[in-house]
Amino acid sequence: MSGSSASAPHAVTYSYLGPVGTFTWAALRQVPEAAGQVWRSVNNVGEALDDVVTGRSIGAVIAIENSVEGGVSATQDALANIPGLRITGEYLVPVDFVLVARPGTTLADVRVIAAHPVAYAQCHLWLDARLPEHEHLPATSNVSAAAQLLADNPIADAAVAPPGIEKEHAVAVLAEHIGDNPNAVTRFVLVTSSTTIPPRTGADKTSVIVELPTDQPGALVEMLEQFATRGVNLSLLESRPIGDELGRYRFVIDLDGHVLDERVADALLGLKRFSPKVLFLGSYPRADKVAVTVTSRYDDEVFIDARDWLRGLISGEPDEP
Amino acid sequence: MSGSSASAPHAVTYSYLGPVGTFTWAALRQVPEAAGQVWRSVNNVGEALDDVVTGRSIGAVIAIENSVEGGVSATQDALANIPGLRITGEYLVPVDFVLVARPGTTLADVRVIAAHPVAYAQCHLWLDARLPEHEHLPATSNVSAAAQLLADNPIADAAVAPPGIEKEHAVAVLAEHIGDNPNAVTRFVLVTSSTTIPPRTGADKTSVIVELPTDQPGALVEMLEQFATRGVNLSLLESRPIGDELGRYRFVIDLDGHVLDERVADALLGLKRFSPKVLFLGSYPRADKVAVTVTSRYDDEVFIDARDWLRGLISGEPDEP
Amino acid sequence: MSGSSASAPHAVTYSYLGPVGTFTWAALRQVPEAAGQVWRSVNNVGEALDDVVTGRSIGAVIAIENSVEGGVSATQDALANIPGLRITGEYLVPVDFVLVARPGTTLADVRVIAAHPVAYAQCHLWLDARLPEHEHLPATSNVSAAAQLLADNPIADAAVAPPGIEKEHAVAVLAEHIGDNPNAVTRFVLVTSSTTIPPRTGADKTSVIVELPTDQPGALVEMLEQFATRGVNLSLLESRPIGDELGRYRFVIDLDGHVLDERVADALLGLKRFSPKVLFLGSYPRADKVAVTVTSRYDDEVFIDARDWLRGLISGEPDEP
Amino acid sequence: MSGSSASAPHAVTYSYLGPVGTFTWAALRQVPEAAGQVWRSVNNVGEALDDVVTGRSIGAVIAIENSVEGGVSATQDALANIPGLRITGEYLVPVDFVLVARPGTTLADVRVIAAHPVAYAQCHLWLDARLPEHEHLPATSNVSAAAQLLADNPIADAAVAPPGIEKEHAVAVLAEHIGDNPNAVTRFVLVTSSTTIPPRTGADKTSVIVELPTDQPGALVEMLEQFATRGVNLSLLESRPIGDELGRYRFVIDLDGHVLDERVADALLGLKRFSPKVLFLGSYPRADKVAVTVTSRYDDEVFIDARDWLRGLISGEPDEP
Repeated sequence: MSGSSASAPHAVTYSYLGPVGTFTWAALRQVPEAAGQVWRSVNNVGEALDDVVTGRSIGAVIAIENSVEGGVSATQDALANIPGLRITGEYLVPVDFVLVARPGTTLADVRVIAAHPVAYAQCHLWLDARLPEHEHLPATSNVSAAAQLLADNPIADAAVAPPGIEKEHAVAVLAEHIGDNPNAVTRFVLVTSSTTIPPRTGADKTSVIVELPTDQPGALVEMLEQFATRGVNLSLLESRPIGDELGRYRFVIDLDGHVLDERVADALLGLKRFSPKVLFLGSYPRADKVAVTVTSRYDDEVFIDARDWLRGLISGEPDEP
Repeated sequence: MSGSSASAPHAVTYSYLGPVGTFTWAALRQVPEAAGQVWRSVNNVGEALDDVVTGRSIGAVIAIENSVEGGVSATQDALANIPGLRITGEYLVPVDFVLVARPGTTLADVRVIAAHPVAYAQCHLWLDARLPEHEHLPATSNVSAAAQLLADNPIADAAVAPPGIEKEHAVAVLAEHIGDNPNAVTRFVLVTSSTTIPPRTGADKTSVIVELPTDQPGALVEMLEQFATRGVNLSLLESRPIGDELGRYRFVIDLDGHVLDERVADALLGLKRFSPKVLFLGSYPRADKVAVTVTSRYDDEVFIDARDWLRGLISGEPDEP
Repeated sequence: MSGSSASAPHAVTYSYLGPVGTFTWAALRQVPEAAGQVWRSVNNVGEALDDVVTGRSIGAVIAIENSVEGGVSATQDALANIPGLRITGEYLVPVDFVLVARPGTTLADVRVIAAHPVAYAQCHLWLDARLPEHEHLPATSNVSAAAQLLADNPIADAAVAPPGIEKEHAVAVLAEHIGDNPNAVTRFVLVTSSTTIPPRTGADKTSVIVELPTDQPGALVEMLEQFATRGVNLSLLESRPIGDELGRYRFVIDLDGHVLDERVADALLGLKRFSPKVLFLGSYPRADKVAVTVTSRYDDEVFIDARDWLRGLISGEPDEP
Repeated sequence: MSGSSASAPHAVTYSYLGPVGTFTWAALRQVPEAAGQVWRSVNNVGEALDDVVTGRSIGAVIAIENSVEGGVSATQDALANIPGLRITGEYLVPVDFVLVARPGTTLADVRVIAAHPVAYAQCHLWLDARLPEHEHLPATSNVSAAAQLLADNPIADAAVAPPGIEKEHAVAVLAEHIGDNPNAVTRFVLVTSSTTIPPRTGADKTSVIVELPTDQPGALVEMLEQFATRGVNLSLLESRPIGDELGRYRFVIDLDGHVLDERVADALLGLKRFSPKVLFLGSYPRADKVAVTVTSRYDDEVFIDARDWLRGLISGEPDEP
């Protein structure tokens, strides 16, 4: 439908966690600029980001958060550690699962279920209730787990997979909508190496990764006040261990607004002064297109007026009482 | 050495993520009261906690944090959702891995590596450098992955496993100390259903899970101030999605001190008043036995003196200016 | 009308800044329990408070704040330094002034105007406009300044005085309503040595005097957060130099609510722990009888529920998740 | 000694609360640029400031704070209400008093003591102890009170006056060092209408007057955080009633540092955005010449680096992780 697997010279390529049919593939279908370009299926997030860093692909779509499992740790750590990456877009995909098996298999036959650990976690209440004796076999991908059911020596009896899998592979659907939370969605981002920031739309999000200074008690409160005192709302705050010693954390933060919004720019300045390390991951349009609203005290003009006032004072103008 | 697999009538049983040789087993060996009791090997954290809830075991040792992978999400979510659990002890196990294979296999032969996803994440730099073409096969347990190498139809060529695995299973060690971070440790806790709080030792930790009120901007700052204004230091702060909708979080918190410390008790009161839901997981001795130090302004006597003063005022005593 | 100047044995006496006709006298007329008792006119606040300390009077009415001149420094300092005083009531008197002179004097004759410095400050715009050449003669009391106009050697041509002065002294009114601010009121308090706290009315105020610890940056913010985090609103915050060195201050604070309100009690506990010196001046009904409203999160039951929860935890009850 | 009372054409004039011998006169002697210029003695602060506003004088020296009596309310209110004034210098004068009388008078003869109310307040403990029966006659100036003792009809028996008064007037000194606090000093400022800000010296002070927004609970905490989060220390915080209704305040603030210090400029921007009204009164060298020290996290370079970083991001430069 969209995308092409034939690689032309100088083709524009997008990498995604494949194969065709994964949730990531569904997210990539939401990226307008990827329509008609080359879509490259890769095996893991590291490979996808490596494609971007090396220039093999112009962008990669990766999962970064879902409403059940929280931050996707590997993605967050990769973004923190690989230089030169930027987020330029955000996409939401509803989390919905089917249980599939080799044709002929019934629910009663199922003992070993292959599933990516995150998908498994999102279905385990359903599985525990219907198949209390089942065993979970972790898979690197739900789609490949489903495909493997058709192999000569299948190592599982069934697989958790995304809806529509039966169109790509000759499996039978044993049950639909087996996800435990009908409202679950997964959040994906488009990652590129371009440092050009997408223009402001009024419904934007900005992502940063921040380390705390170690020698200041109350450092986390102080970091969060950088946002609160400028009326900047956070939509995501995840702590991730830095990994060098127990108790040292970095924070993955999504905030409402664009770096060109005055209040966001000022908060980033405060953050940069406070933190030993701030990594700017990008400003980009929100997937839900909901405009960010702030009280008038944090409007752009308030910031501009204050700067004009201060500039006037310093240049010798009288203050107006 | 310690522990016994023979279950006697009325035996005291401890559950752990087995089999013998896992890091969790190493943690259980640090639990003094478990010496000489029945050790029950289970397959996952849910099973271990279920043993406690049903009374099959008196306690379960589970991993709750490590310095590389952060909070162990499944454990944190289980503690948040299963009523009646308490943490009564904490244990640290150094994270150290070996790469093992069927005897006769050389490093050059290895293509598919079985490993628990967390263990894999802790070794992937080493593996990427030595075995750039390798493929990761997620396993539910490193020990069972190593054991499976010896099966008739092994699905992997090598496995990541804890040191000493070769004493339990007839595998050959291809490489030692393959962990990417030589300082990594994993933190385990002993979970029970007893509501008796272990006595104060002066080197204690308290764990709680807290939800934020949704209708208050700056709610996270306000929650953290409950601790900061009483001089209570946090050693862990993890956000976990509540799971009902994107953007709603609960926080897993470890704080320095015991619920019988006045400053901790007062912070918990503030937290309880502020939060729509606070779950107390327990106060227990720290694994590192490092005494908690606070400035004198947060000493117990300061709290007691203030209460005495207020009680005096209310009962009609004069204030001393 | 009310009050008597004849001192009977065992008479109950109230001291006030006299003579009859002063604003303080007008405030004392608002004190129900003073009706029919002995009213003792004194010359200054120190004398009034001394009457209370020595037991000569059961209470003294003194000015503590007005809307134009801010805190009355001498009163605030006296309350800070004299042990054993409590505020038990609050009264408001509208600030309204007349300009009076010896009969026969016209406005054009006036050059020297006697007035208490605070009263003068409240009328100086009117006086500057009508009598640009006038000279101010500070007086200890407006009423005595008016009386002195009738002496043999008057040292002033006119006096600023409270309305009704012409009923007590044979002066002529040159102008009415000469106060610069028609909404100005002065706040008075009834000071006693009784340590019995008046009962809660739901429309109460609590007064304290607080010193800041010297060695903590941000100490003032931290002090104010003791109130903010308990939803306690301040209606007065005055800094007063402690007097031992430049830059050391104490704070005079009025807060909404009664010491028996849970949120106020908890804030006072926090204050007491934080501050090297807190002086409780009393909880008493507000003059304006406006009920204090707080959001439900700071209701008494919220505090009581939190204490019950913590007590249950410590005594070994399970937490309800 | 210094100064001249003869007014030359185009003479540079400084106004001060006279006459010769007052503490204000002693402060003016500390102003280097006033040496050899015309010194104009005025009767009150309003007159001094009026001289500056109308251009009659190039500057005025006025008392703004002392360590015993706190902020000088009239001065603070005048600065808040008169447009176009700036503070350009600060001077400290030790507070020391003598008690003087007409020659021939002994201490035992003294009953009525003339004194400016502030001076009286600073000596009243001494006077109460030695002259328990004395009466206070408020005077507009201590020096003129001393001079009046020599008039034909003296209205007082003695006066509180600054040391050295006997060189200007033929009074006898009855007692020296009668001030209650030997460390007391009064702080004076030089006020001009020039909007040129004195250069940075590294030991500077900045004065502002700020109103709080009325509709925000915790507004005072939020205002103070504008300083705290930039490492800006306050040396003075005075609340003054705005005067339009009870409970509305403005704050007189002195902060450590110069408007050209990055952290001060940024705090002023935050203040301006927050407050409905900020009045900048000036940046000027501290009287005590003590350099302002800040932790390195608030150094100018930290602010400049943050701005460079943000500017780079916006212009499309990669971030350095």
